[in-house]
Amino acid sequence: MQENAVVECVPNFSEGRRLEVVEAVVNSIKSTAGVKVLDYSSDKDHNRSVVTFIGNPGAVKKAVLAMVEKAKELIDMEKHQGQHPRIGAVDVIPFIPLKDIGMKECVELAREAGREIAKAHDIPVYFYEEAALKPQHKNLADIRKGNYEGLKAEISKPDRHPDSGPSKMHPTFGAVVIGARKPLIAFNVNLATDKLEIARAVARKLREKDGGLACVKAMGVMLKEKNLAQVSMNLVDYEKSSIYAAYELVRIEAARYGVDIAGSELIGLTPLASVVDVARYYLKMEKLSKDQVLEYHLI
Amino acid sequence: MQENAVVECVPNFSEGRRLEVVEAVVNSIKSTAGVKVLDYSSDKDHNRSVVTFIGNPGAVKKAVLAMVEKAKELIDMEKHQGQHPRIGAVDVIPFIPLKDIGMKECVELAREAGREIAKAHDIPVYFYEEAALKPQHKNLADIRKGNYEGLKAEISKPDRHPDSGPSKMHPTFGAVVIGARKPLIAFNVNLATDKLEIARAVARKLREKDGGLACVKAMGVMLKEKNLAQVSMNLVDYEKSSIYAAYELVRIEAARYGVDIAGSELIGLTPLASVVDVARYYLKMEKLSKDQVLEYHLI
Repeated sequence: MQENAVVECVPNFSEGRRLEVVEAVVNSIKSTAGVKVLDYSSDKDHNRSVVTFIGNPGAVKKAVLAMVEKAKELIDMEKHQGQHPRIGAVDVIPFIPLKDIGMKECVELAREAGREIAKAHDIPVYFYEEAALKPQHKNLADIRKGNYEGLKAEISKPDRHPDSGPSKMHPTFGAVVIGARKPLIAFNVNLATDKLEIARAVARKLREKDGGLACVKAMGVMLKEKNLAQVSMNLVDYEKSSIYAAYELVRIEAARYGVDIAGSELIGLTPLASVVDVARYYLKMEKLSKDQVLEYHLI
Repeated sequence: MQENAVVECVPNFSEGRRLEVVEAVVNSIKSTAGVKVLDYSSDKDHNRSVVTFIGNPGAVKKAVLAMVEKAKELIDMEKHQGQHPRIGAVDVIPFIPLKDIGMKECVELAREAGREIAKAHDIPVYFYEEAALKPQHKNLADIRKGNYEGLKAEISKPDRHPDSGPSKMHPTFGAVVIGARKPLIAFNVNLATDKLEIARAVARKLREKDGGLACVKAMGVMLKEKNLAQVSMNLVDYEKSSIYAAYELVRIEAARYGVDIAGSELIGLTPLASVVDVARYYLKMEKLSKDQVLEYHLI
């Protein structure tokens, strides 16, 4: 691990309504030396917040520990309600290699952080994605099956035991999922229709699970304010799937229904290579590399 | 001027054949503390080389002075031949604001460097583009009119006097043009034809001078190896002109002749905003900012 290594961390925690609690949890990260909070946002319906921050591996781990301590103090899962799947006060903590650090080292960092949390707070910890120790823990959705309430009832069964810490929910915090993954691209395409079933049908054609593009997860959702149906996607491996390919495939599938694309959006952050890739495709460039982007040399 | 200010400098010098001379001149830059050479390339037909380097303003100025000294030692303009317009051993030195520095400060830096060169080496110095002191010196082409040989004969005339230094060519170095400008995008579009006249006709429709896109310079050239005609462009203000607009305008003008685009290329470096702009257009994004590019936060 090099001195200049930078890790991204995108923890999700189970509070999106009491803004003073959100601020206190975010501040526990901000006040850790050596990290920089790039973004955070809360959703009232989901009663959940997401923070994006970066820093050197040691500082990021410290910030995660501080955050867990603060969330444990202020969030009680017995009282938590919200639409989004969740099992704990801090629900999921992915570590993402950004610079001068590999996935292997991020996996180690995630497991170290997880074991320290389990030990210090008596919290059950699951390792997911690249940090998974069991195949059934690779997917977040499998770990969160039944939510806080369901896991509480089943955690004592061997096939739902955590990877670290007690096989018993923490009475207020619940449990936490920690892991390592590549940067994820959240890409949404709006269709020029108010018919949700069209977005759902297009999403089925897009997602890997149903024979679509590898490394793409997709669902159809309704945008109430705009009255448009949206294909909401996660591109989970930016080195394999391309934004332009997802866009063009949505276009040709929607055309089946005589529906055009109304627009698209990237939520949060995306790797430089993914943007360069889009330009390279539409401008018919044999080669265009991120080395050709001026700012890349200022890193 | 802030502590973290970064300036880009892209000097062109009049040697592209004797590679030991090219290396020596480039090394004079490389060996200056605080600068980083990103790229350099030489052209034998032009007998000319281009270096791209970055650093803090003070270090970049030092590197420029070291480079002029080395070029003065090794290059004799009385013996120089080459197709490209030129008036001096180091021919043109643009300073480009990259980070935490404005154009005004780059203009000051250019003029300071120019005056030091004039004084230390008795070399005539012209200030161009944003650093120009006279309107007739704004355009590089106007200063270089007649090339080394022509300027040598006319430099004593008042309307061709330099902005600093003697009104007499240095006997071996010639003269130098120094200035400040925005980053320039060198964008070439290859047409699926071997007819140079089509590329020339398309270039005329593209360039500002003839009623095309503002801040675009364009010419038609022949790519001998590929046997394709090319529209070769400079986008001189990336905040005003867009790569996608130039590309699409080339496409519709070439279509007039039944000719398609075969491909395109960006030469050298381009600002992040210009690549983001391409993605935003083709993906119909209302908003996409360079803040959404992960690596931007590592700067």
